[in-house]
Amino acid sequence: MLQGVRKAEGEDVAHTMADLGRRARAAARRLATCPPDAKNKALLAGAAALRADAGTILAANREDVAEAEARGTKGAFIDRLVLNPERLEGIAKAVEDIAALPDPVGRVLAAWERPNGLKFERVATPLGVIGVIFESRPNVTADAGALCLKAGNAAILRCGSESLRTSGAIAAALRQGLAEAGLPQDAIQLVPTADRAAVGLMLAGLDGNVDVIVPRGGKSLVARVQNEARVPVFAHLEGICHVYVHAAADLQMAKAIVKNAKLRRTGVCGSAETLLVDRACAATHLAPLVAMLLDAGCAVRGDATTQAVDGRVTAATEEDWRTEYLDAIIAVRVVDGLDEAVAHIETYGSHHTDSIVTADEAAAARFLAEVDSAIVLHNASTQFADGGEFGFGAEIGIATGRMHARGPVGVEQLTSFKYRVHGTGQTRP
Amino acid sequence: MLQGVRKAEGEDVAHTMADLGRRARAAARRLATCPPDAKNKALLAGAAALRADAGTILAANREDVAEAEARGTKGAFIDRLVLNPERLEGIAKAVEDIAALPDPVGRVLAAWERPNGLKFERVATPLGVIGVIFESRPNVTADAGALCLKAGNAAILRCGSESLRTSGAIAAALRQGLAEAGLPQDAIQLVPTADRAAVGLMLAGLDGNVDVIVPRGGKSLVARVQNEARVPVFAHLEGICHVYVHAAADLQMAKAIVKNAKLRRTGVCGSAETLLVDRACAATHLAPLVAMLLDAGCAVRGDATTQAVDGRVTAATEEDWRTEYLDAIIAVRVVDGLDEAVAHIETYGSHHTDSIVTADEAAAARFLAEVDSAIVLHNASTQFADGGEFGFGAEIGIATGRMHARGPVGVEQLTSFKYRVHGTGQTRP
Repeated sequence: MLQGVRKAEGEDVAHTMADLGRRARAAARRLATCPPDAKNKALLAGAAALRADAGTILAANREDVAEAEARGTKGAFIDRLVLNPERLEGIAKAVEDIAALPDPVGRVLAAWERPNGLKFERVATPLGVIGVIFESRPNVTADAGALCLKAGNAAILRCGSESLRTSGAIAAALRQGLAEAGLPQDAIQLVPTADRAAVGLMLAGLDGNVDVIVPRGGKSLVARVQNEARVPVFAHLEGICHVYVHAAADLQMAKAIVKNAKLRRTGVCGSAETLLVDRACAATHLAPLVAMLLDAGCAVRGDATTQAVDGRVTAATEEDWRTEYLDAIIAVRVVDGLDEAVAHIETYGSHHTDSIVTADEAAAARFLAEVDSAIVLHNASTQFADGGEFGFGAEIGIATGRMHARGPVGVEQLTSFKYRVHGTGQTRP
Repeated sequence: MLQGVRKAEGEDVAHTMADLGRRARAAARRLATCPPDAKNKALLAGAAALRADAGTILAANREDVAEAEARGTKGAFIDRLVLNPERLEGIAKAVEDIAALPDPVGRVLAAWERPNGLKFERVATPLGVIGVIFESRPNVTADAGALCLKAGNAAILRCGSESLRTSGAIAAALRQGLAEAGLPQDAIQLVPTADRAAVGLMLAGLDGNVDVIVPRGGKSLVARVQNEARVPVFAHLEGICHVYVHAAADLQMAKAIVKNAKLRRTGVCGSAETLLVDRACAATHLAPLVAMLLDAGCAVRGDATTQAVDGRVTAATEEDWRTEYLDAIIAVRVVDGLDEAVAHIETYGSHHTDSIVTADEAAAARFLAEVDSAIVLHNASTQFADGGEFGFGAEIGIATGRMHARGPVGVEQLTSFKYRVHGTGQTRP
């Protein structure tokens, strides 16, 4: 009997998700040829609806928060879940900012003519249907839905079970905006069930109706998505970012960059986790850098040389070089020159974001060429690893894979392309 | 006892393939920062070695052919397998042509500056390690190996078991070229075993040491690769390409394009499989188009209207609209205008290559926008679906997926990118 009930539930989820996939594909077909104005109208109307529905959305959020607290959920998690009027205004404003971005669809990426007179154009097109799987932050509903729509894609959004009411109310506002602009409401769909089987179905691609999956959340979510997905994934598992203070680094600049890279915000993927100091400048730079970090409240785990310069430094183990602390902790190692710095980063890094501090342009050029990361910086903080800082307006995430999207994933990276060929009757010899 | 032997063999293949993967990754790391001249020197030396080793390569090929014939293999298959001095010269020349292409690595794809003075560059980088799985044509060994190398990638090549000797001799020549240029020979590796388990291991990604798989061969090979691969795939399952003769089509142009699209070569993926004729011009255009095809030796399977214009037309079934004939057969249907033509193509096509013949620019623009295929043409033959015809110099295949590469996959599509950021000490507020 129980088995029968379970089977029926499983069939319900499968049916619901397959239906979501078909609706998303149909909406994506319509969005693909939708003029920019209609998409922007939908986004602005959605932002207006988010403000008009503030009462409903905040009430839904209070229910979600109350339920989470009743289950004994912890402070940081609750903080991510909670909305207030200011946060909701920020969400609406972000949707308006996305509407104001240049339209990424229809851009002519390249154009050329062949000797036979054929004119070729490579033109940006939407990707299709994007599945977004996220955890507690309800703002992702609006951010991800709006970014997908701006790029002409349909979005299937799967929120954490704790924020289902809040995310549902936000999605309803965006869907109202779609309706007001005459666009299919199925362009933005929220998975309506907390059943975890829905995630597995999305990762399997909903019968070819999901083109890419974007996970937004902690390492365990991303790892599951990367392991199980049968469709492409835009993601980074972790950001083990390095700052390499080269022999020719200016000490004051190095201190400012290291402090910012590690401590501006410790919980973001672009925060530095390891500091590499060149042995050639260790005598002058290592102690001040370590003291600066310790004095700023950062724990330092160092190799033998680093431990020797300050009694407060504890011993780093092999595991420390592989750890994304996401906290006020840094691993520090002295390296024998650029080659060893690059070798360390290639061995222990996560191909996310790495920076060199140096006044030596040739050394910088080598570092930027040889470090195989999505983002490589010279004389700048790793915390610039952010779509907004890149000028992309907004990002749906940061990718460390090599395929299609790499680094911050903004609206341009949410497009594909096609070739348009203009002839006058040409046949192939 | 037998079980023990099988297990040992399986372990051998697993060990061999894992080793190939590690060697490829190490070679790819070196190629990533290798100057264009060194890659070109390796390619030119490889072409020279192909000519110098002609005796060895042709002898190996005679052995492969003799063995295949002894097994009773058929004519077309043998034709694809056979090399002769002219074909080998063509292979060497193709490698030289690839050397002469512009280097795709290091291109600055975009550059911009932010108000804080940070200078951003999006720069093309190699993809990494490319696995190529192909069937009998031994020229793919050279073409694919050379294309991968030109784009700074390491290649793991898996040929059909029938061409193992020939492909081995060709790969040896290319590896000699690598050695002469001081590049790692592991940049081009041929899977040395005919064990089919090797394919499964490649599709699983060799412990993260394969970044993309390119299948080159028939539909069953591509289907297996698409179904089983745990890494991205550049491929098309089939080319169900359409020519739509619009109401405003010039009849002579339509006849020339349809004839070329269907009959220039019937066995290529860009050959047309279905002709759609607009009802608005059917009275004048349908009978001449059908007669032209029949008179040229092409079988025509048509809907009721098409059958009515010529007694030689047989009835098309639903299955015909979904069939890639790769033969002198065409399906013909009369459609009620552009919307029905687009709907037919979206329902039955394979998102490969589709063409509209019309003098109406607005109709052409709509078709090119609404047909969601990698290549859409106006007044030109579908047989232009080819990297060479696009001006890419050479292609490793044609992709119908939406991710990363779409349409002909040339050296540019075999690259990824990274962001280089140049600062003067910037920290993030």
